[in-house]
Amino acid sequence: MLSKNTVKFIKTLHQKKYRNLEQKFFLEGEKSVLEVMDSDFKIELLLATDQFMESNEETMQSYRGELLNVTQKQLESVGQFQSNDSALAVVCMKPNHYFDQPQDELVIALDDVRDPGNLGTIIRIADWYGIKHLLFSEQTAEFYNPKVIQASMGSFTRVKFYYGDLAKVFAQWECPVYGAYLDGENIHQLDQVNPGILLMGNESKGISEELAPMVTNKLTIPGSGNAESLNVAIATAILCDNFSRLGV
Amino acid sequence: MLSKNTVKFIKTLHQKKYRNLEQKFFLEGEKSVLEVMDSDFKIELLLATDQFMESNEETMQSYRGELLNVTQKQLESVGQFQSNDSALAVVCMKPNHYFDQPQDELVIALDDVRDPGNLGTIIRIADWYGIKHLLFSEQTAEFYNPKVIQASMGSFTRVKFYYGDLAKVFAQWECPVYGAYLDGENIHQLDQVNPGILLMGNESKGISEELAPMVTNKLTIPGSGNAESLNVAIATAILCDNFSRLGV
Repeated sequence: MLSKNTVKFIKTLHQKKYRNLEQKFFLEGEKSVLEVMDSDFKIELLLATDQFMESNEETMQSYRGELLNVTQKQLESVGQFQSNDSALAVVCMKPNHYFDQPQDELVIALDDVRDPGNLGTIIRIADWYGIKHLLFSEQTAEFYNPKVIQASMGSFTRVKFYYGDLAKVFAQWECPVYGAYLDGENIHQLDQVNPGILLMGNESKGISEELAPMVTNKLTIPGSGNAESLNVAIATAILCDNFSRLGV
Repeated sequence: MLSKNTVKFIKTLHQKKYRNLEQKFFLEGEKSVLEVMDSDFKIELLLATDQFMESNEETMQSYRGELLNVTQKQLESVGQFQSNDSALAVVCMKPNHYFDQPQDELVIALDDVRDPGNLGTIIRIADWYGIKHLLFSEQTAEFYNPKVIQASMGSFTRVKFYYGDLAKVFAQWECPVYGAYLDGENIHQLDQVNPGILLMGNESKGISEELAPMVTNKLTIPGSGNAESLNVAIATAILCDNFSRLGV
């Protein structure tokens, strides 16, 4: 049975403050829940409808955590989705771990990307292109924000990330730092790139003054129209696609 | 002075039903308002703060429509933005005009793209790559939805669009129809493309059964990771970038 206390607890996880306090977050919808069940994240509590349990019998059989059988109405009352007839999971956060410079891999670094939808979309793009490591400045949106988790479409389970001082990390790592600018080298004319860091800036301010001097390669996405700029997730995708074409 | 009736009128424009009835929509924020003032859209009413008028003196001098000087607080009470210290415009819609097949140009067609943020972002991408014509199925998100206008970042003023039966249009036009699939030709291996239609499908269902047989060229964005798919706006951007590289 879904107790009042459990309802109250899950509702507190809608707020960042309580997520941090509890070191737990929640996610909802069949796809995200199945992805997290198939990952190394620890699930604290699973709320699932009859329908979810029936259509995912095998997955449910190997699930060992706490389970509450709930109705669609109950799910919708605790989550953020307007409509959810499947499941919601309360999951333990992973600690913020620094990682060493990966060899022969592109790493995406985000300099104050604030919009949770953009962050989630960038995580999904990273996962599409097989990029496993992400660096986030302290002011970048929170990885465990429900909108980030939702936009990542399960890809959040497959990336490693570290929140910290990007300038310090860049100073320690010996590799090129690629940054998107309006006056850089045309990415369609690159004939070689090396693994390194792809640095993407804030939605309105771009790459910060502190990090700009650390960019070793300024890149530009050529456009022939009149839009002044591209959304940061869109630009990330186009750059990743151009890197992938060159084997990085 | 901002009358109660004007407040009430603008608030009705938050709803699609009233936008259609009045054939008017609204947009807010300095960038969008300046872009629409610089376009061939007819502005019905402009609400502007002292700050907006002072920092855009020249633009204001050539503005001939109705103007109301308002406070930031008043702007925020009628619009959707949490914070708006500049302006809000009520603008006349353009009629839904069919256009003939443009020559030597790529046209983007959207088959039931439902999310307003995706539609606005795709309009911005089109404008970046100089794509001027867009075709929308009837079930595609509404062009004048405030979220579409906002996500397009002013680019909505520079594209032509037509809502209608895509199958009929495709049957009339003689050109290739490119569609994104998971099992198509690798876009990194294309060495030539011709102007035509780039068809993008619904967020969850992809390209509809009705239109799928009309796709002449199935394309695939190669990925080496584990994400099952890409967001539709992201895929549109990557495809446009690959077409632009080949001169289309």
